[in-house]
Amino acid sequence: MSLTIHPVTGIPEVTEGTDLGVLIGDVCSSGEFGLANGDVLVVTQKIVSKAEGAIVEIDQSDPLSHKPLVEREAVRILRRRGDLIITETKHGFVCANAGIDLSNVARGHAALLPDDSDRSASRIRERIRHNHGVVVGVIVSDTFGRPWRRGVTDVAIGCAGIGAVVDLRGTEDALGRELLVTEVCIADELAAAADLVCGKAEGIPVALIRGVNPGWLRESSVQEEIIRSPSEDLFR
Amino acid sequence: MSLTIHPVTGIPEVTEGTDLGVLIGDVCSSGEFGLANGDVLVVTQKIVSKAEGAIVEIDQSDPLSHKPLVEREAVRILRRRGDLIITETKHGFVCANAGIDLSNVARGHAALLPDDSDRSASRIRERIRHNHGVVVGVIVSDTFGRPWRRGVTDVAIGCAGIGAVVDLRGTEDALGRELLVTEVCIADELAAAADLVCGKAEGIPVALIRGVNPGWLRESSVQEEIIRSPSEDLFR
Repeated sequence: MSLTIHPVTGIPEVTEGTDLGVLIGDVCSSGEFGLANGDVLVVTQKIVSKAEGAIVEIDQSDPLSHKPLVEREAVRILRRRGDLIITETKHGFVCANAGIDLSNVARGHAALLPDDSDRSASRIRERIRHNHGVVVGVIVSDTFGRPWRRGVTDVAIGCAGIGAVVDLRGTEDALGRELLVTEVCIADELAAAADLVCGKAEGIPVALIRGVNPGWLRESSVQEEIIRSPSEDLFR
Repeated sequence: MSLTIHPVTGIPEVTEGTDLGVLIGDVCSSGEFGLANGDVLVVTQKIVSKAEGAIVEIDQSDPLSHKPLVEREAVRILRRRGDLIITETKHGFVCANAGIDLSNVARGHAALLPDDSDRSASRIRERIRHNHGVVVGVIVSDTFGRPWRRGVTDVAIGCAGIGAVVDLRGTEDALGRELLVTEVCIADELAAAADLVCGKAEGIPVALIRGVNPGWLRESSVQEEIIRSPSEDLFR
């Protein structure tokens, strides 16, 4: 089955207190593509942080003024080189600068990561179900770097109603032999796919993905399914 | 602009010597969606390895018989835990077991990584341009794990005619301030998106992506753009 990824245009500037479920539900359902059961909405972290008030003031005359914030928000510093600090956040994410960033935020401000992006996703999902009678999956995405490979990609930092990791172990491949390594992080793949239409400079904060395998739609959590505990991690 | 990802069905079993450009070009152009300038084809590594004869025999009675192969194919072992070996390959990829795997390969055999997946992608692209007069981008994808996050995702190991990393530095965000970190690895995002329709168990080895930003279509190389040199890497 084919998958279609639509940019959701017409989302106005989000401020603290905006109910994202109401906003996104209304914009999507009155838009060109509507909203259908089984759609997956990918919502970029920045508007979630803005809606939840996770924005702090920084001294805009000092290009390093967000660094003390990074130290405060990180529970652990993994690596440091020049201005770059690779951190572990309280959520268990390993990313640069504790996920704090300055792009698409008003001058003199920085956006922190949402407190609990699984819960943020769940709220958006429940609001859309309540207001529009449509059951969608929701992913909150953010842009992370990674070791060994240049360039950033979008990954899932929260989800609701869509599996984060799909376990195909025990199913057979096309030649009838049991698959060996097949826990696929579809939430990260969906977040990456969404970024291809949102872009960084476009200011399009939501993508609508239609055609997702219905077997993947279920209760889920990035915290429980994606975050690898330090004890099973070989690179911490 | 919306993006559509179609699974390319009807690709027969690939064997050594198969000309993938001919095969994929013919199947796509006679298929439901055809082929258009600017389409991006994502071709999974397994059929590239098969076509190029990068398949070796292993002792199928010994579940660890591919391990000496892993040691041979790796230029460096980064980590080891139980059966899991995290390796650096001659191409500069950091992945489990030197990229060798046993799924979707005949019993008693293992698939090695293609020798030069950028070249493999380029050959497919040139063949399709020659036979069908259509200019497409081609990505060769493989399935890699990553630190800190559970589940595998598909990434690009070769590309032609589609940028690997798109540099948005210096462009402005939607609020008119210069973006700070904006080298986006679109080749990995496209590979991840394609995996959502190919799946591991489906045996669909090619996806057709339509609607890719035309500004991203250019000469490119995974080797040159994505592989991070050890000197600039913080986790080697």
